[in-house]
Amino acid sequence: MEKFEINVLGCGSAKPSPVHNPSSTVVNFRDNLFMIDCGEGAQKEFQRQRLKFSRLNHIFLTHMHGDHVLGLPGLIGTMALSGLEGDITIHTFEDGKKILTSIFDYFNRGLPIDVKFNVIKPEEAVVFENGALRIRTIPLRHKIPAVGYVFEEKPRLRHINRDMCDFHEVPIWAFNTIKAGEDYIKPDGTIIPNRVLTKDPTPPRSYAHISDTAYIPGLAEKIHGVDLLFHETTYLTQDLDKARERGHSTAAQAAQTALDAEAGKLLTGHYSSRYKDNTPFLEEARRIFPNVILGKEGLNIVV
Amino acid sequence: MEKFEINVLGCGSAKPSPVHNPSSTVVNFRDNLFMIDCGEGAQKEFQRQRLKFSRLNHIFLTHMHGDHVLGLPGLIGTMALSGLEGDITIHTFEDGKKILTSIFDYFNRGLPIDVKFNVIKPEEAVVFENGALRIRTIPLRHKIPAVGYVFEEKPRLRHINRDMCDFHEVPIWAFNTIKAGEDYIKPDGTIIPNRVLTKDPTPPRSYAHISDTAYIPGLAEKIHGVDLLFHETTYLTQDLDKARERGHSTAAQAAQTALDAEAGKLLTGHYSSRYKDNTPFLEEARRIFPNVILGKEGLNIVV
Repeated sequence: MEKFEINVLGCGSAKPSPVHNPSSTVVNFRDNLFMIDCGEGAQKEFQRQRLKFSRLNHIFLTHMHGDHVLGLPGLIGTMALSGLEGDITIHTFEDGKKILTSIFDYFNRGLPIDVKFNVIKPEEAVVFENGALRIRTIPLRHKIPAVGYVFEEKPRLRHINRDMCDFHEVPIWAFNTIKAGEDYIKPDGTIIPNRVLTKDPTPPRSYAHISDTAYIPGLAEKIHGVDLLFHETTYLTQDLDKARERGHSTAAQAAQTALDAEAGKLLTGHYSSRYKDNTPFLEEARRIFPNVILGKEGLNIVV
Repeated sequence: MEKFEINVLGCGSAKPSPVHNPSSTVVNFRDNLFMIDCGEGAQKEFQRQRLKFSRLNHIFLTHMHGDHVLGLPGLIGTMALSGLEGDITIHTFEDGKKILTSIFDYFNRGLPIDVKFNVIKPEEAVVFENGALRIRTIPLRHKIPAVGYVFEEKPRLRHINRDMCDFHEVPIWAFNTIKAGEDYIKPDGTIIPNRVLTKDPTPPRSYAHISDTAYIPGLAEKIHGVDLLFHETTYLTQDLDKARERGHSTAAQAAQTALDAEAGKLLTGHYSSRYKDNTPFLEEARRIFPNVILGKEGLNIVV
């Protein structure tokens, strides 16, 4: 199966602890790396996990709080010092583009890497698309404008049923159109239906990254059927008042969204530093939704 | 003895490696913490070494390269989130004040910590002074303006020789002036010389922090007799051409400065990430100056 994996680089929150980095996640889709948020220390963790800078061309920012973006100038400086050239695109809001441009102009002057910006808005939109992948934004509820990102693999080509193709004497040059779903018309005019010549493809996979946000009751339907859901779990229910006050979610609320969305798996993270031990997040979430992965730095998860 | 210690938070260089943080050092002088440079990840290492944010009120920047300053906004944000209030003073050049102000205005808006700036120049000057400590700058030779910092303990009070004071019936109220070096005049007019009543104080200690810089032949005399010298060792002599080209020093050059300055100890650091193993820095420096400490994160050194 083609690679579609998540690497957790940082799952602490605004006040990092000695054990957690601030936010950063890497989506490895067929060996193209997409970074979501870039908190301080992301570049170090990126290297520690043996990810390749040369594979990284897009960085998606969820919002402009420092713990999600302050690793950017260092990351880009290090990429340039690693001998990389070319460009990297940062997807962020207009004000993010403005402050980051002034920071890069000061600290990354004259580097061979060209930083481009794709200005996004806090609304539902497709922000990246190629032949195999679509990335869309979902507006979240936080103290400042914020979006989540949904990575959706596009439907794949059908698998050739080689025995049936041989039986019907289908020439190899016709395979591509058959994989794409077309019937085969024999030289004598006989139509061989596509379903005879092919098998169903693997269903397309999807990953939703939801951080930072208060609980949104209607969110589940926007990410329905997602295979892997990262949903921020800054607090436990015992601190629900703080979650509400600060625009964050509890483990139970994240699990409720995973349950309502009929997600395959839930990945937790963005833990408040007030909790020395994170296992209660796993326990709280599992009471509502069984398939929970307790996020931590260094984790590699297949979607 | 009153505390005068160095904590190494980061001893990597511009391109951090998975094992080294970019530059940051903390000087603990009588439980007041003075930070020199604040590369990305300094706040995490600060906490890991169990240093106290409440003791940190001054940050001294050597120069405005990202690997020496990009940990600042995160550090200050975390201090505020830790419930600290009051002010913190950043000692930097005019252009450093300008870009840092715009970064703090964006990312640290409304925080209860008041960031003040003490604008310094790349010249010899006293930049901080209190009753016990003086900190002065020394201009260095780098690609952009840079200074080193010398921390000098002020001469301490003389120790009371209790037996002699008792013998001469010196009242306790006179001890403070005697510690300060004055003679004691008995009620009958007899003068008891200070040297009879006191013992020499411990000699004042000093620490010099020299980073980033090319080798400066005249530097040694400006830091003569320093107890502990941190001098950057970005390269080994085998890469002397790179050191010259990029405004850095080799381990041998740092050792030569330590030797010429008759320093007590030399601490190495700011290693280029091209060297996977740092022990050759120790070997190269020791051939010239014997008392070398190989800098690494987590090290605590008594001056």
